[in-house]
Amino acid sequence: MDYVYAPGKNHLFVPGPVNIPEPVLRAMNRNNEDYRSPAIPALTKTLLEDVKKIFKSTTGTPFMIPTTGTGAWESALTNTLSPGDRIVSFLIGQFSLLWIDQQQRLNFNVDVVESEWGQGANLDVLESKLAEDGGHTIKAICIVHNETATGVTNDLSKVRFLLDKYKHPALLLVDGVSSICALDFRMDEWGVDVALTGSQKALSLPTGIGIICASPKALEASKTSTSVKVFFDWKDYLKFYKLGTYWPYTPSIQLLYGLRAALDLLFEEGIDNVIARHSRLGKATRLAVEAWGLKNCTQKEEWYSDTVTAVLVPSYIDSSEIVRRAWKRYNLSLGLGLNKVAGKVFRIGHLGNLNELQLLGCLAGVEMILKDVGYPIKLGSGVAAASAYLQNNIPLIPSRI
Amino acid sequence: MDYVYAPGKNHLFVPGPVNIPEPVLRAMNRNNEDYRSPAIPALTKTLLEDVKKIFKSTTGTPFMIPTTGTGAWESALTNTLSPGDRIVSFLIGQFSLLWIDQQQRLNFNVDVVESEWGQGANLDVLESKLAEDGGHTIKAICIVHNETATGVTNDLSKVRFLLDKYKHPALLLVDGVSSICALDFRMDEWGVDVALTGSQKALSLPTGIGIICASPKALEASKTSTSVKVFFDWKDYLKFYKLGTYWPYTPSIQLLYGLRAALDLLFEEGIDNVIARHSRLGKATRLAVEAWGLKNCTQKEEWYSDTVTAVLVPSYIDSSEIVRRAWKRYNLSLGLGLNKVAGKVFRIGHLGNLNELQLLGCLAGVEMILKDVGYPIKLGSGVAAASAYLQNNIPLIPSRI
Amino acid sequence: MDYVYAPGKNHLFVPGPVNIPEPVLRAMNRNNEDYRSPAIPALTKTLLEDVKKIFKSTTGTPFMIPTTGTGAWESALTNTLSPGDRIVSFLIGQFSLLWIDQQQRLNFNVDVVESEWGQGANLDVLESKLAEDGGHTIKAICIVHNETATGVTNDLSKVRFLLDKYKHPALLLVDGVSSICALDFRMDEWGVDVALTGSQKALSLPTGIGIICASPKALEASKTSTSVKVFFDWKDYLKFYKLGTYWPYTPSIQLLYGLRAALDLLFEEGIDNVIARHSRLGKATRLAVEAWGLKNCTQKEEWYSDTVTAVLVPSYIDSSEIVRRAWKRYNLSLGLGLNKVAGKVFRIGHLGNLNELQLLGCLAGVEMILKDVGYPIKLGSGVAAASAYLQNNIPLIPSRI
Amino acid sequence: MDYVYAPGKNHLFVPGPVNIPEPVLRAMNRNNEDYRSPAIPALTKTLLEDVKKIFKSTTGTPFMIPTTGTGAWESALTNTLSPGDRIVSFLIGQFSLLWIDQQQRLNFNVDVVESEWGQGANLDVLESKLAEDGGHTIKAICIVHNETATGVTNDLSKVRFLLDKYKHPALLLVDGVSSICALDFRMDEWGVDVALTGSQKALSLPTGIGIICASPKALEASKTSTSVKVFFDWKDYLKFYKLGTYWPYTPSIQLLYGLRAALDLLFEEGIDNVIARHSRLGKATRLAVEAWGLKNCTQKEEWYSDTVTAVLVPSYIDSSEIVRRAWKRYNLSLGLGLNKVAGKVFRIGHLGNLNELQLLGCLAGVEMILKDVGYPIKLGSGVAAASAYLQNNIPLIPSRI
Repeated sequence: MDYVYAPGKNHLFVPGPVNIPEPVLRAMNRNNEDYRSPAIPALTKTLLEDVKKIFKSTTGTPFMIPTTGTGAWESALTNTLSPGDRIVSFLIGQFSLLWIDQQQRLNFNVDVVESEWGQGANLDVLESKLAEDGGHTIKAICIVHNETATGVTNDLSKVRFLLDKYKHPALLLVDGVSSICALDFRMDEWGVDVALTGSQKALSLPTGIGIICASPKALEASKTSTSVKVFFDWKDYLKFYKLGTYWPYTPSIQLLYGLRAALDLLFEEGIDNVIARHSRLGKATRLAVEAWGLKNCTQKEEWYSDTVTAVLVPSYIDSSEIVRRAWKRYNLSLGLGLNKVAGKVFRIGHLGNLNELQLLGCLAGVEMILKDVGYPIKLGSGVAAASAYLQNNIPLIPSRI
Repeated sequence: MDYVYAPGKNHLFVPGPVNIPEPVLRAMNRNNEDYRSPAIPALTKTLLEDVKKIFKSTTGTPFMIPTTGTGAWESALTNTLSPGDRIVSFLIGQFSLLWIDQQQRLNFNVDVVESEWGQGANLDVLESKLAEDGGHTIKAICIVHNETATGVTNDLSKVRFLLDKYKHPALLLVDGVSSICALDFRMDEWGVDVALTGSQKALSLPTGIGIICASPKALEASKTSTSVKVFFDWKDYLKFYKLGTYWPYTPSIQLLYGLRAALDLLFEEGIDNVIARHSRLGKATRLAVEAWGLKNCTQKEEWYSDTVTAVLVPSYIDSSEIVRRAWKRYNLSLGLGLNKVAGKVFRIGHLGNLNELQLLGCLAGVEMILKDVGYPIKLGSGVAAASAYLQNNIPLIPSRI
Repeated sequence: MDYVYAPGKNHLFVPGPVNIPEPVLRAMNRNNEDYRSPAIPALTKTLLEDVKKIFKSTTGTPFMIPTTGTGAWESALTNTLSPGDRIVSFLIGQFSLLWIDQQQRLNFNVDVVESEWGQGANLDVLESKLAEDGGHTIKAICIVHNETATGVTNDLSKVRFLLDKYKHPALLLVDGVSSICALDFRMDEWGVDVALTGSQKALSLPTGIGIICASPKALEASKTSTSVKVFFDWKDYLKFYKLGTYWPYTPSIQLLYGLRAALDLLFEEGIDNVIARHSRLGKATRLAVEAWGLKNCTQKEEWYSDTVTAVLVPSYIDSSEIVRRAWKRYNLSLGLGLNKVAGKVFRIGHLGNLNELQLLGCLAGVEMILKDVGYPIKLGSGVAAASAYLQNNIPLIPSRI
Repeated sequence: MDYVYAPGKNHLFVPGPVNIPEPVLRAMNRNNEDYRSPAIPALTKTLLEDVKKIFKSTTGTPFMIPTTGTGAWESALTNTLSPGDRIVSFLIGQFSLLWIDQQQRLNFNVDVVESEWGQGANLDVLESKLAEDGGHTIKAICIVHNETATGVTNDLSKVRFLLDKYKHPALLLVDGVSSICALDFRMDEWGVDVALTGSQKALSLPTGIGIICASPKALEASKTSTSVKVFFDWKDYLKFYKLGTYWPYTPSIQLLYGLRAALDLLFEEGIDNVIARHSRLGKATRLAVEAWGLKNCTQKEEWYSDTVTAVLVPSYIDSSEIVRRAWKRYNLSLGLGLNKVAGKVFRIGHLGNLNELQLLGCLAGVEMILKDVGYPIKLGSGVAAASAYLQNNIPLIPSRI
C-alpha cells in the first residue's frame, strides 16, 4: 500500500469516523473469546441496559447489530414497515438523500419533502400532509436528526408536536447517526419510535456496530411488518435476549469491550456535559467561520449543528482543494463537500472524543489553508474569535479540581 | 460485568472466533482515519487484489462487507437469486439448518436434502435431482463446505462434477465460513459461483467482515436478481470500485489494517502450508479421540473435518458439562453441541492461527476433564497418539532454519 | 532484521522474561504523560503501598528503579555496604556467580561459600562462619533465594534462624528475582533486610523496573554506607518521597500503569493462590521429568524450585540442541544450560502468568523434542504423570464458579 | 488511584517524556520473548548499527542501557574517568546542576563554570582554562547541549574549536538528552567523545533506554578508568557484542521493537527534515511569545532552543499557576519552572513526534490560560504570529504529494 506517514498526530476532523479515546483503544486490544461462555452474555447485558441511556430512553429496546449506519437504517425500516407503506421523508442533503434512496429501493412509497441544501426539514409541508391525512395513510415519518452533509439539525420536538396535534399514529423513525451522544436527543420525551446511530460517530469507537433503539410501539409494529429480512430481523435478537445468550450470530468481542469503555467514559463525563461540550465546540467553530468572513452552509441559526459545520467558500475557490491540501500539508483531515455542494463547501467535524485545544489547532490549520488557496484571510482571526468564547466557557475538568 | 479473570492464557478452541495473532492485534491497535483520504482506497485496493488468493480465484470479484457470516450468506443469496427461485440446499447440521432457514425466510423455494447429522451432503440425491431437472428449474445449489456443528466437510469437487455431468447451469453457492484459509478450497477450479467466509474464522481476525467472492457468472446473475436489498447490494460496491473510492459506506479502518496483516502472515506461511498445518492438527485431534476410545460425530473418514472435531460422548455424560468444566476449571474454551447433538457432542475447534503445542495443551486438558466427568480415560493416551503423529510430521519453521 | 514468524503462539518457557497477561499489555498500551502532573504521583503512591505486599512486608520501604535485576543487585549492595566490608555469599550457579562477580567488582570483601551446581547454599559453612565471627566482621549475608540456572531454592528461614542463633547483626540481602510473587517469601517474618526482584519475572511485566524493598535496618545502614553511587542512591528517592513527587528522574509511565494492572491481577488471584499455582506447576513438571527417566539438576527435594526446573540430559545429548530445536520446530522457548552446566541441562521456566494447560503443551513439546534428539522417550508419559497430579489438584477458577 | 479522565487528547508539551507515535505504540504492543533466541540478537544488531545515525557518527560505539538519562550520565562519567579527575562542567540550569551534582558525588574534581540561568555555557572561561592548562590536568569537558530548564542550546562546535586551538586532549562529554534527534548534532564532526540521550525524549519512546555513543578515544579511556561500576560498565556490553548475543542482562523486548519502529520513522522522515521541523516549531513558538509581549528566558538569540522554550512571566503572575491551570482546565501539559526559575517561567516543550497544528493548539491554549491568570493578552496574537511564519515554511508531506 502507499505509505503515507507524516510526523505527529493526524488531526481528524471529518464528521466520522472520529477520534477514539485511548481507554477505548486499550479495551479493544484483546484476543477473541468464545461468545457463548458466560462472560460475553454478562457483558452484553450491561451494555443493553446502559446503551439506552445515550438515547434517553427507559422504555426502548436496543439492538447492537454488527453493521454500519446504512445497515441500521435498513433495520429500522424493514422491521417496522411493509412494502408499499407510505412514508414521509425529508431530503435536505446527501445523507437524507441516501436514506430516501434506500427507502425507495426497499419498495416503500416515499413521499419526499425536499428543501434547499442548507435548510432544515420543511415541517410546514409535514403539517399540511398530516392535516390532510385523516385516513392515516402515512405509516412513518423518516427524518435525519442531523444532516452531516450540510450541518443542519432538525427540530424533532416540533415533529412530535405536529404528530400529536393531528393525533397521527405514524411511526417516527430518526437517523441520529451524527447526533446521538453529541446533541440533545430525547427518545422517550419526543416519542421517537426508532432511533439509530453508528459506533464510529459520537460514541468514538471503530465502525462496526449499528445501534438501534425501538419504542414499544415500534416493537409492536415489527410483529406485522412483512418486509423481507433475516440478518436485520429484530425477532432473532429478541429470541436470544429471552434465552439470555443475546447473540443470534457472532458479535465483535473487541467492539463489545470497546463499547463498555466508551459508555463508561461518557457516563463519567456525564451525557449532558458531553452535549454541552459539543455545543461549545460548535459555537466556537461558527465564531471562527464568521471571523474569517465566510458563510455557514446552514442558512438559519435554528438549524446550526453542533457536530459538523459546512463552510461555504467563495466561488473562485474549489473546496476540494482545501481538503486535499489539509491532508497533504498539515496532516489535517477535513470533510469534502458532497453531491450538490461538492466543491462549494468543506466540512469541519467536531464530534466525538474531542476537546477545545484540538479544535483550535484545527482552526489554525484551516486558516493557513485558506491563505494557501488564495483567500484573503487574517491569520489568527478565527482562533481569536473562538478562543474569546471558549476562554469564558470551558469548565474545569471535574476529576482534576 | 462479571469478572472472570483466570491466570494464564485462555485456551480458545471453539471453532470461531479464533485466536488472533499478535501482529494482527498490533496492526489493529490504531485510531480511526478518514476513509475518504487517499490512504484507505490505496490500502483497500491491495486487499481486494490479495483477498482473492484465499479463495484461489483469479476471475472472481470480492466484496468485504461490514457484517458477519450470516450477512455474507444473505448477500450471496439476495444478489444472485430472485424470490421464488428453486434452490437445492443440504441440511446436515446446525449451520446448514440456519442457512436454509434464511433461504426460506428470504422467500426462495428451497428443496432441502437432509442427511443424518454426522453425515455429509447426500450427493446421490443431488444427482437424481439434477438428472430430473432438464428444464433447469434449479437456480442454485447451496452447500456448506464444512459444517461446523458436526465437523463434516463436503466434497465440492463432486458437486461440480455432477453439475458438469448434467450440463446444469445452476449457480453453486458455498458457505466456506469454517473452511476457507484452512481447508483445500479452489473457487475457480471447482466452478464455485459465490464463496464466502467471515473474518473471525480461519483468517484469525475479530468478527466484522463478511468476505464474499463472486464468479463472473454470479455477477451476471446479480444483474437480473429481483431480491430486495440495499445494505448487501453488490451494485453499490461495484459503483464505488469504479470510482476508485471503494466504499459505499464506512468500513472499519482497524479491520482493514488487520486484514492486511492477516493476509501478509498467511502469504508468509504459504496458503498451502496453512492448509497442511490444519490437516496435521485435524489428524492429530482424531488420533487422540480414537485413543480415548471415543467416537467422532462424523460418520465416515471422507467427511472428516480438519478445522473442527465433534466428539461423541457416552450417553451417561452430558457434553455440556464438559464445556462448562473446561471453562470453569481449565480456562479452556470448547464448543458446545448444538441442537440435535446438544449434550451429545463437544467440539474442538482447530482452525486459525494455532500450532501443535497449543493443540496438545488442549488435548491434555480434555483428558483431565473427561476424567473429571467420570469417563474412564487413560490420562496421556490422546496426547501420546497425537504426538506420535505430529513428531513425524511437523516441518521446521522456515524462517528459523 | 531476520523475520522469524511462526504460526500460533510462542510457547515462552524460559525463566524470564515471562508471559505478560493481556490486561497488563492493555494497561501499558498508552502514550507518555507528564510525570510531574498530579496523576503520576497519585498512581505511584498506590504502587509503593501495594508493592510491599508481594514482599510480605509492612515495615519495608520499596524502591522501583528504572533498571534490571543486575541494577537492583547493585542498588542493594551500594546503599547498605561500604567498600571493604566483608560479606558472605553463596556460589551455587550462574546467577549467584554473577552477583558475586558484581560484589567483588564493587570492592567488597567477599567470602564465597561454594557448592556443587545443583545443590543449595551450604548453610553449615554459614553456621561455622557465624559461630567464629564474634567480632561481627561479617557485614552482610548475600543469598539468591532461587538460583535460576539450576532450579535450586534456598531455605531463607534457616538463614534467619542461624543469624538469630548467633545473635549476629549482619544484614540479610536476598536476590528474589525468580522467587518473589511465585515462591513463599516472607520478608518481615524472615528478617530479610533487602529483597529485590525484576519486573519481567513473576510479576509478568516487561523488563524495566528493579523492585527493591529495604527493612528499617537496611535504611539505617544506608545512612553510613560510603559506596559511591548516584543513579542507584536511595537517598534521592527518599527525598522525593517526602516531597510527594516520588521520582528523582523520569519513570516509565507505561510500566507504572502495567505494574498497577499486574498487582491488581495478583491480588485478585490472591498471593497465596499464586504461590500454590506455582507449586502445582513445579510439581507437575518434576513428575514429568521423572516419568521421562531424566534427572533433575537439583540434587535434593528440599531444594526443588517451583519456578524453574533444570533437566539433566544423558551425556550423548547436547542440551543446547534441545533448546534450538524447540525454537526452530515447535515455537517453544526453553532455557539453555549456562556456564558449568552448558550442554548438560535445559531449563523449563514455569513462573509468572501461566496455567496448567500451557505447561502441559510445553511438556508435550519437550517429549517430541527428546524423541527428535534420540532419547528413547515414551511419548505422552510425562504429560500423563503431570496430568494425573494436576487433575487432582487444580482448583475451580473462583470468578467462574 | 485518582481518576483524572478528561475528554479528548492530552496535549503533551512538557520537554519529555514526549508524544509516542502510533506506529511505535503498535510495535511495542507485544508479549515478552526469550532474549537469548536468535531473533533478539538479530534485531539488536540492526539497532546498534542504525542508532549511530542519530548521533551522526560512523566511528562511535553505541550502548543501549536499560536506564534513564541520569543513568546514561553516570555511564558516560564512570566509564571514561577516574575518581579525582579534573573536569570542567558548565552550570547554566537545573539539568546541568543535577549532572554536576552527580559528578561531584562520583568523586570527580569538578571545575564548575557558572552562568546566569538563561545564558549559555561561558566558553570564554573555558578558553582561559584551556589556555592555562598546558599540563592537561583537565581530563574532560562536560557540557549539556541543550539545557532543558531554560531552553538554552550551547555551541558545541565552538567547544571543539577551542579544544583544537589549544591542542587539548580532554574528553568531550555531551548530554544530548533534549537535543539528539531534534537539534543539529554531529558527533564525529564535532569530536564529541561521549554523547547520550534518553528514549523518552526526541526519539519519542517510553522511558527506559539510556542511549550512549562512545568515540574510539572514549573507549580507549575506558580501559584505564578506575571508577567503580558494574551495571553501567561498558566492558560487559563489549564482551557480549563480541559473542554476538549483545546483552549482559535482560533488555526490554518491547523497547527494542519500539526503537526499531522509532528509527524507521525518523529515517523515513529524514533526520535533517526532523531537525528542520524542530527548527520550525521552535521559531513559531518564539514568534508567539514575542507577540504576547513576553520574554524568553533565554537571553540571546544564539542560545535559542528549538526543543523547549522557557517563557518568563511578569512578576505578578506565578508561573506554576499557569501549569496547574493548563492541566486542570485545558488538558494541556506544560513544563514547570525549576529551582531558580520556579514560579518565574513556564516551559513549552516542542520536541519529538509533533506537528505544527498540535503546536498551534497548544499556543491557543496558552493564550487562554494567560488571560485566565490576568495577563492582558490579545487572544489569537501568538497563533497569528506563529501561523504567519509556518504558513510560509511548512513543506508538503513527501509521502502524500
